[in-house]
Amino acid sequence: MIRPHWPVRSLGAIAAALLLPGLARAQDTLRVTSPDGRNAVTVGVREGVAYYAVERAGKHVILPSRLGFTFRGARSLGDSVRITASARAGADTTWSLPWGEVARVHEHYNELRVGFAEIAEPRRQFTVVVRAFDEGIGFRYELSGAGGFGDFEMTDERTEFTLADDARAWWIHANVPRPDRYEDLYSSSPVSVIDTVQTPLTLEMQSGVVAVIHEADLVDYAGMSLAGHYESRTLQVALAPWADGVKVRGHAPFVTPWRTIQLADRVEDLAPSLLGLELNPPRRIENTSWIRPMKYDGIWWGMHLNVYTWGQGPHHGATTANTKRYIDFAAGNGLSGTLVEGWNVGWDGNWMQNRDGFSFTQPYPDYDLPGVAAYARSKGVSLIVHNETAMGIENYERQLDSAFALYHRLGVHAIKTGYVNDKTAAGDSHTGQYMVRHYRKVVETAAKYQIAVDVHEPIHDTGERRTWPNMLSREGARGQEYNAWGGEGGNPPEHESILFFTRMLSGPMDFTPGIFDLLIKRQTGKPRSPDEPRPRSTLAKQLALYVVLYSPVQMAADLIENYDRQPAFQFIRDVAVDWDTTRVLAGRIGDYVAVARKTKSKDEWFVGAITDEAARTLDLPLSFLPNGRRYVAQIYADAPNASWRENPEAIRISSQPVTSATRLHVVFAPGGGQAIRLIPAP
Amino acid sequence: MIRPHWPVRSLGAIAAALLLPGLARAQDTLRVTSPDGRNAVTVGVREGVAYYAVERAGKHVILPSRLGFTFRGARSLGDSVRITASARAGADTTWSLPWGEVARVHEHYNELRVGFAEIAEPRRQFTVVVRAFDEGIGFRYELSGAGGFGDFEMTDERTEFTLADDARAWWIHANVPRPDRYEDLYSSSPVSVIDTVQTPLTLEMQSGVVAVIHEADLVDYAGMSLAGHYESRTLQVALAPWADGVKVRGHAPFVTPWRTIQLADRVEDLAPSLLGLELNPPRRIENTSWIRPMKYDGIWWGMHLNVYTWGQGPHHGATTANTKRYIDFAAGNGLSGTLVEGWNVGWDGNWMQNRDGFSFTQPYPDYDLPGVAAYARSKGVSLIVHNETAMGIENYERQLDSAFALYHRLGVHAIKTGYVNDKTAAGDSHTGQYMVRHYRKVVETAAKYQIAVDVHEPIHDTGERRTWPNMLSREGARGQEYNAWGGEGGNPPEHESILFFTRMLSGPMDFTPGIFDLLIKRQTGKPRSPDEPRPRSTLAKQLALYVVLYSPVQMAADLIENYDRQPAFQFIRDVAVDWDTTRVLAGRIGDYVAVARKTKSKDEWFVGAITDEAARTLDLPLSFLPNGRRYVAQIYADAPNASWRENPEAIRISSQPVTSATRLHVVFAPGGGQAIRLIPAP
Repeated sequence: MIRPHWPVRSLGAIAAALLLPGLARAQDTLRVTSPDGRNAVTVGVREGVAYYAVERAGKHVILPSRLGFTFRGARSLGDSVRITASARAGADTTWSLPWGEVARVHEHYNELRVGFAEIAEPRRQFTVVVRAFDEGIGFRYELSGAGGFGDFEMTDERTEFTLADDARAWWIHANVPRPDRYEDLYSSSPVSVIDTVQTPLTLEMQSGVVAVIHEADLVDYAGMSLAGHYESRTLQVALAPWADGVKVRGHAPFVTPWRTIQLADRVEDLAPSLLGLELNPPRRIENTSWIRPMKYDGIWWGMHLNVYTWGQGPHHGATTANTKRYIDFAAGNGLSGTLVEGWNVGWDGNWMQNRDGFSFTQPYPDYDLPGVAAYARSKGVSLIVHNETAMGIENYERQLDSAFALYHRLGVHAIKTGYVNDKTAAGDSHTGQYMVRHYRKVVETAAKYQIAVDVHEPIHDTGERRTWPNMLSREGARGQEYNAWGGEGGNPPEHESILFFTRMLSGPMDFTPGIFDLLIKRQTGKPRSPDEPRPRSTLAKQLALYVVLYSPVQMAADLIENYDRQPAFQFIRDVAVDWDTTRVLAGRIGDYVAVARKTKSKDEWFVGAITDEAARTLDLPLSFLPNGRRYVAQIYADAPNASWRENPEAIRISSQPVTSATRLHVVFAPGGGQAIRLIPAP
Repeated sequence: MIRPHWPVRSLGAIAAALLLPGLARAQDTLRVTSPDGRNAVTVGVREGVAYYAVERAGKHVILPSRLGFTFRGARSLGDSVRITASARAGADTTWSLPWGEVARVHEHYNELRVGFAEIAEPRRQFTVVVRAFDEGIGFRYELSGAGGFGDFEMTDERTEFTLADDARAWWIHANVPRPDRYEDLYSSSPVSVIDTVQTPLTLEMQSGVVAVIHEADLVDYAGMSLAGHYESRTLQVALAPWADGVKVRGHAPFVTPWRTIQLADRVEDLAPSLLGLELNPPRRIENTSWIRPMKYDGIWWGMHLNVYTWGQGPHHGATTANTKRYIDFAAGNGLSGTLVEGWNVGWDGNWMQNRDGFSFTQPYPDYDLPGVAAYARSKGVSLIVHNETAMGIENYERQLDSAFALYHRLGVHAIKTGYVNDKTAAGDSHTGQYMVRHYRKVVETAAKYQIAVDVHEPIHDTGERRTWPNMLSREGARGQEYNAWGGEGGNPPEHESILFFTRMLSGPMDFTPGIFDLLIKRQTGKPRSPDEPRPRSTLAKQLALYVVLYSPVQMAADLIENYDRQPAFQFIRDVAVDWDTTRVLAGRIGDYVAVARKTKSKDEWFVGAITDEAARTLDLPLSFLPNGRRYVAQIYADAPNASWRENPEAIRISSQPVTSATRLHVVFAPGGGQAIRLIPAP
C-alpha cells in the first residue's frame, strides 16, 4: 500500500515527542537504577505531562510513557504539572514465606519518590513512587489531598506502556468475548495487533529482553487489563468499570496498586516470580500454623464427567458415604485434604440463576457435615468446604461470618470458593472495584476464622499471599476441567507450557492435575477418540504438572477409583507442595519447560518437564544438586510407545543413580512429560 | 469454573451428530482418496444435510462439516437433500509454467462428483466436485439450473471446516480493524480463539498434520475469509458482501471457486504450494514471450522516506531526468525493469479522495512518458507504469483500454496497479464480488494489450496466474514499506519467516526487498535508532529475501544511490527470478526458514535462509545438488558482529567449494540471514 501521510508514528503522545533522547531538560527528569545497575527508570515532565521510561542494560524497554488520571467532575491529572520534590530510599532485606515456591525472599531495591504538583489551580499533588529491583520495576501513585482533592470518581488511569519495539505478546482477551474470567487459551501477536488483554502480559521483545507487565497490591481499586491500539506499540491501563462507568471510587489521600514490569534476559529467568510479593505489605497473620500446603482429593471431576451431580438425585456426589470414601483414600495415600462440592443447599435446578439461594451452612439431607468433618479430623485429613456463590455476592457476604464460624467449629481450615457467572446481578464483573473489595473481604474474614482460601473464578493474583498467607491458591486460568467438556476438544498440549510463562508468573494456580483415566473410559466404558474432549497429555505429563504448575494445594483430580493399582500414583504420594528453591532448567514459551524445585527443609528435589504436541528431547544438567553427593532419581517417563493421542497412559518408571554432574536425557512423547524425584542415595 | 451444562461441544451441527464414526449409512457416503492413498475425502448426507470430511493417513483432519448455501428470497440449499448420483474421474498430467517457482507441475488427482437433489419441491440440484491430490484436497459446488433455479442472491455460503483438533492457526484479521487489505502482522492462536481471519490460513494441528485452508479459481464470486466461533473448532466460510448485504449474485448453472486444504506432515513440505494452480484452468495466453520475470529498480522507496513526492513540487520523484537515472542504473546492473510512481496527473493534494481524478495517460509536465519509454527500450529496460486508482474503479475501467493501448504503443509490457482506500465510493471492499470482477477484468484486458500486472492492495491470489500468466505478482501482505513509517517501528524480525508459511503459500508477493541503507540515514543524515521505523534486518537477510519470498518480479527497492560501491549488490545482480525447482531445507513458522531454488534452465542454485530476532545456527545439507559435481558457493553471510539493532550492514562475502555431500554451517545474527549462489566449479 501507500501511506498517505508519513511518518505515521502511532506512539503515545509522550513517546512521539520524546523519541529522540536528550530532549528533556535535566532538571525535569530523575532516574533510579536497580541494585545491579541494569534496570533503570526515568521519571520526568515534558510539556507539562508526567511520564516515565524504563531501560534494561542500556536498551530501551518502555519509551517515555504517560502518567496520570481522568475523573468525573474534575480535571484530568498529570498533564499540566511540574516536579516539586523528590526523595530516595531503598531496602535490602530477606524475609521468609510461611509457604511458597521459595522459602526466603531477598527484597533489594532502590526507591525514588517524585512529587508532582499542578502548575495552575487547584494545584493538586501526587507522588510517583518507583522501586527498581534487579528482577524488574514497580511504580505506583500516591494521590495527595492537597488542592481540595477529596472524594473522587476516577474514569480512567492514563498510565501507558509504550514498548520500545513491537514485542511478541502472549495474551488472553480481557472483557471480550468472555468477561474477565481469564479462562481463554493463549494467543501470541505483536503488541501492535492486540486489543484489550489480561495481565500478566508476557512480552518477548525484539531486543531480547523479556518483560512481563502486571500489577501488585490490589486492595481497593479496579483490576488492570491493558488496551492495545492498532498499529501502535502503546498499551494503556484499562480498568473494569462499575455499572455506571466509573472505574475507581476513592478519597484522597489515596494509594494505587503498583504497576509492575518484570524484566529478564531469558524466559527461563522469569520464574520464580517474586516481584509482586516484594511489592505487597508484610504478613498480617502471626500464627500461620493452621495454614497447610497440601495435596487433596475430592468429589469434583466426577461432576465434570457427568458421573456425579452437584445437585440432589440418584447420582449426587456429595453424600456422607462417598465423602468418607474420599477421606479414607486421602488418609491412606498421603493426601492431607478432601474437597467436597455440591454438599450444600442451592444446587438443584438452574443454580447459575440462584444468586440468592445458596446456603453456606445447610447441607443436603444425604450429607452429614458435622459427621464428615469429625471423620476427616479423626483421619488427619482436612475437609475442604466448597462455597459456590454464582456471583450472588450479597448473599455470600451476609453468611460469611456465620458460615466461617461454623467451619471453624467443625475444625475446617480450608475452603474453595466459586464465582461462576460473568457478573453480579448489579452488573459488576470479576475484576471491578466491587469484586476486588469482595475477594479481599473474604480473605480477611477467613483469616479471622483461621480458614485458608482457594478461589475459583477469582480476580488475578497480585501478590496478596505475602500479606494474607491464607490466600492459598486460585484458578484464574484455563485448567484441567476444560479437558472434560470443552468445545475445543480439550486444552491443546502446548497449554501448560504457555501457562508457566504467563499466568503462573502472578502466583499459584489450582490447575488440578493428576488425571489417570486419560481416555475418559470410566464415564461410558469406552475410550474417547482423539477428536473428543480429553486431556491432551500423557500420564507422565500429568505427574510433571505437580512440579511445573506451582500451587500450595495440589489436587489428585481424578476419580479415586482410577488410582487403583496404578504404580505411577506413587509420585503423587511423594511429591512435595512446599519448596525451598525453584530453578527453571530449560524452557520456550508454548513448546516446553523443565523446572527443578527443592522440597522445603528436606534433602529432596523434584523435576517436572513437559512438552507440547511435539515429541522432543532435552538434556537436563542436574547441577542444582550439591556437589559430591549421590542421589537416586526416581523417573516417571513417557514409555517409548506413548503419545497423548494413541497411548497416553504408557509410562515407564525407573531409578538411576545421579550426581550434580549428571545430565539427564529426557525423551518426551507427543503431549508428554517427565516427573522425577531425587532423594539421597542410601 | 464449573460448566452448567455438559458435554458442551461447540462443533458444527453435523460434526456433533457425526463425531462417532460409522453412524452414517453406507449408501449415503462416498469417498475418494489421493493417488498415494494418504488423503481421503468423504462426502455424504446426514439427517438431510450435505457434508464432507477429510482425513490424512488415517487421522481426522476435518470432521464431518456442513455444505450448502443461503439465499435472499429462496430457501437455503443443502439441508434437506439426498444423494442422487456420483461419478469418478481423475487426471495424471504434467504441464509447464511459463514462469514460476517450479518449471513443471505434475497434476495428479482422483475426482469424485456427488450429485445432490432436494428431497422436496422445488427439488433444486447441485453437485459437489472433490479432487484429492497427494498435496491436499479441493472441492467446489456446481449449482444446477434444475428446479427453476435461475438468478440468485446468495446471502451466505455455509461451508464449514470443523477441525479435528484445536489446531494452532497463524492468522491475520479479516474485515476488522482494517478492511481486507491483508496488511496485518500475524498472530497465532488456537482455532477456538480466532475471530474472522484471512486465507490462506495455516494450521499446525495437534496430530502433527499441517493444513492450509484457502481457495482457488476465484473468478466471479466474493473472496473467502473464515469465521471462527468462540470455544469451537468450526470455521465457516465468510464472504465479503456487496453494499446491500448480498454476498454473491449469479445465475444457475453456476460454479463456485474451489475450497482448498493443502495437507502436509511437516511445514517444510508446504512449499512449493501448487495445489491452487492445479485447480485453475489451463493457460489462456498462447504467446507468453512478452511476459518476463525480472528484477527492477524504481522511484518508490524515496517517497516512503519523504525524499521524493508522488505529487508535483520541488521533490517530485517521477521526473524525466530522475527516471533516466534509474533506467541507466537498471541497464548497468542486470535489472530488466524500472518502476515509476507519481508520473501521472492526480497525485496533487489529497489524492486518497481523488477517486475520479486520476488520469492513466496524462503525465505530469516534468515527465516525458514517450521519451522515457523510448529511452528505456533503447537500454533494454522495461518501463513499469504505475496505475494508482485510489479505489476509483469506474474511473479506472473507463480508461483501461485507452491507457493500455497507449502503454502497448510505447512498448510497455508491465504495470503496477494500486488500490489504496478501504472501499470504493459505493462501499465495495477489496474482497467483494465487485472487486473480484474488477481485478480479473484488468488482468484480462491487460493480456489483450500484452501487459503484465503487479497488483498492490489486491484480492488474495487464488492461482489465476496459471490461466493468465500476465498476472505476475501482487502485494496482499505487509511488505517492506512498513519499515519506512509503521507505528510499530517496522516489521518484527520474525515477519518474513511467518509470511513464507502463510501468505506465500497462495502465490508470489511483491515484497520489495533489497534495502541497503538499513539505518535509513540517507533521509536525514543520521541513523534511526532501533526504536524508530527501519528494517529489522541485516543486509545479508535483505539478500536472502530474494530467494525466500518468491516473486517473478523482484525489486531492488532502495534508492539507487545506496547501492553505490556496495559489494553485496553483486548478489542482486546475480540472483535469478525464475526457477526450475524449489526445496525447503529447514523451517519453523515464525523462527526461521531456508530455501533452495534452481535457476530456470541453468546449472545454478540459490539458497536463502533467514532467522527471526534470535541469533541461531543451521546445518544445511546441500544434498539437492547433483551427486559428484563440484560447485562454488558464493556466500553472503552476517558478519560476526552483525545484528539488526546495532550493526545491520555488517556482511561477510566469501566463496567455498562444495558438493552435494557438504553441510553448510549457517550462522545467523539477530534479525539475520544468509544468501548463497551455487555455480559449477570452474
